[in-house]
Amino acid sequence: MSWLEAELREQPEALARLLERATATARAAAAAFRRPDVGYVLVASRGSSSNVARYAQYLLGRAHRVPVAFATPSLYTIYGQPPRLDGAIVVGISQSGASPDVVAVLAEARAQRRPTLAITNDPSSPLAETADIVLPIEAGPERAVAATKTYLNSLGAVALLFAEIGDDARARAELARMPEALEAQIALSLGESPPLEEYRDAVGATVVARGINYGTGFEIALKIRELSGLVTEAYSPADLLHGPIAAIGSGWPVLLVAPSGPARPSVEEVVAPIRARGARLLAISDVKAVLRRAHTRLPLVAGVPEWLSPLTAVVPGQVAALRLTELRGLDLDRPRGLRKVTLTR
Amino acid sequence: MSWLEAELREQPEALARLLERATATARAAAAAFRRPDVGYVLVASRGSSSNVARYAQYLLGRAHRVPVAFATPSLYTIYGQPPRLDGAIVVGISQSGASPDVVAVLAEARAQRRPTLAITNDPSSPLAETADIVLPIEAGPERAVAATKTYLNSLGAVALLFAEIGDDARARAELARMPEALEAQIALSLGESPPLEEYRDAVGATVVARGINYGTGFEIALKIRELSGLVTEAYSPADLLHGPIAAIGSGWPVLLVAPSGPARPSVEEVVAPIRARGARLLAISDVKAVLRRAHTRLPLVAGVPEWLSPLTAVVPGQVAALRLTELRGLDLDRPRGLRKVTLTR
Repeated sequence: MSWLEAELREQPEALARLLERATATARAAAAAFRRPDVGYVLVASRGSSSNVARYAQYLLGRAHRVPVAFATPSLYTIYGQPPRLDGAIVVGISQSGASPDVVAVLAEARAQRRPTLAITNDPSSPLAETADIVLPIEAGPERAVAATKTYLNSLGAVALLFAEIGDDARARAELARMPEALEAQIALSLGESPPLEEYRDAVGATVVARGINYGTGFEIALKIRELSGLVTEAYSPADLLHGPIAAIGSGWPVLLVAPSGPARPSVEEVVAPIRARGARLLAISDVKAVLRRAHTRLPLVAGVPEWLSPLTAVVPGQVAALRLTELRGLDLDRPRGLRKVTLTR
Repeated sequence: MSWLEAELREQPEALARLLERATATARAAAAAFRRPDVGYVLVASRGSSSNVARYAQYLLGRAHRVPVAFATPSLYTIYGQPPRLDGAIVVGISQSGASPDVVAVLAEARAQRRPTLAITNDPSSPLAETADIVLPIEAGPERAVAATKTYLNSLGAVALLFAEIGDDARARAELARMPEALEAQIALSLGESPPLEEYRDAVGATVVARGINYGTGFEIALKIRELSGLVTEAYSPADLLHGPIAAIGSGWPVLLVAPSGPARPSVEEVVAPIRARGARLLAISDVKAVLRRAHTRLPLVAGVPEWLSPLTAVVPGQVAALRLTELRGLDLDRPRGLRKVTLTR
């Protein structure tokens, strides 16, 4: 079995380990978010971690009600003109903790005496050493180049923070049930392997997602792209309709991420214009009516609260990426020309 | 002549009109940015205006030294859980001023008694009516569906704000010379029309840009995409190297936006890995060494200060989009299935 598939299957166990080990640390980190001088959150990240950042943007924005901004590393590393960070708590998300640009943002925040938090799989990494508080994601060593369990556990760390910031007993209980839900989701997605043969020779695909699952859309697109080499992109339905839909033509695969919840009707708004163009619809959903409208159906397990749906909704995308890559005869553990750790400024 | 080409050619005149008419308003708007309770800027936008927002993110971030965050409209419109906006000045950018999601963000900011600014081409639009301060972009009526002069003048409005926030005489003088530079750029790009025949049947393309021109990369990708129907995407070099490069294969067109300035070496870092994959390199630059390395050269006029280079660097991209669309026999003024004003929640 490839490392990728082994690590994909290991996700429930890794998540359970995170919840067991990191809850106390998350509680301590939560206190920093509640400081009265914190008016917004600034996140620095790259790659899959930027998709975790998108989850943080919606989750913290919705419930803790603070805006979450993304750092622009080039202001720190290339222009040498970092912004004043009064009012910010600064969070670095990096599985390796090694990317110099992410470290540079946290170092500057620290120099400006702002609170800093590192979410990383390596508690002895440069990122961890730079931050005031370290929340280790406890995923264990990840050998495949493409992230699966480190992505999932980074989402888990954000969800844990959310529950602790709100001191929310219900959220804690819902999160505690997620390793089990994830296990069921992985069994469902690997068991009912969707018929993807017709997409084997596709050039690319478009993923559409919104709200709490906006980052899920980007992560699925990245996973398909890294592994199978298909040119895959992600859009919110609103952004897609503002122009980019013009390039979607007959036969182009469009994958909707549409779990039940307030964002679903907005995602479904693209169905009619996408159909009018003759594109081929795929859907990830726990809603039968959504699946029925799709040409290719990627079902989700029922009963996952919307705020935690990114943890299960990414799985059918990971499995689709895996299957497409196998169909295309590529190496799951060595995507063309990628390395596990990418150092960018 | 198509409306698109007419409006593309009209850009220097439209920019000159903006500078003449809007300077006093920009000065008044600048005062709101200097309020002592303003710690960051929150921008709401869609489509081309989001690419203007990316310019604002770098320009205001670099010089005024405040972080610029992008709003997440679904928190306001779908989840009904807008964040607390203490410390924010909130800017809506929309050529039509009609998009309900952008208006919703400004309405919430106003309800929270935060300062609000609308940058729009329609001073009687819902967006303008919602904002405390209106900075009209003075582009005149735009008839082509794809934005050219409204994009350019929105950049101009941001540049004007920048000069006024800093009360910066040198910046004002440099900006005052831009209509002339823009005129020279349009003559250069339309005159030395690059040989694009070989890209006529391409499926897509990737644009790479960073720093102050990050938004230029997205705008060029959007323009090519809307008009020619090519699946075109934009990445920063750092983000591209963190995974998405895996999908770039032999013959795929990759366009570098690399004017002289601090971000150029970072953009050039992708040349070696892109070449190793057999992709076809195009370059927009005023630097001969950069152009020489490219298969297809899209030259920029010399002497434009880096902070204003987005105003000229977009032009070769607009012209390339126009030429590709002609080569593909499509209607420049009616991109497939798009409307001038898109209303999204």
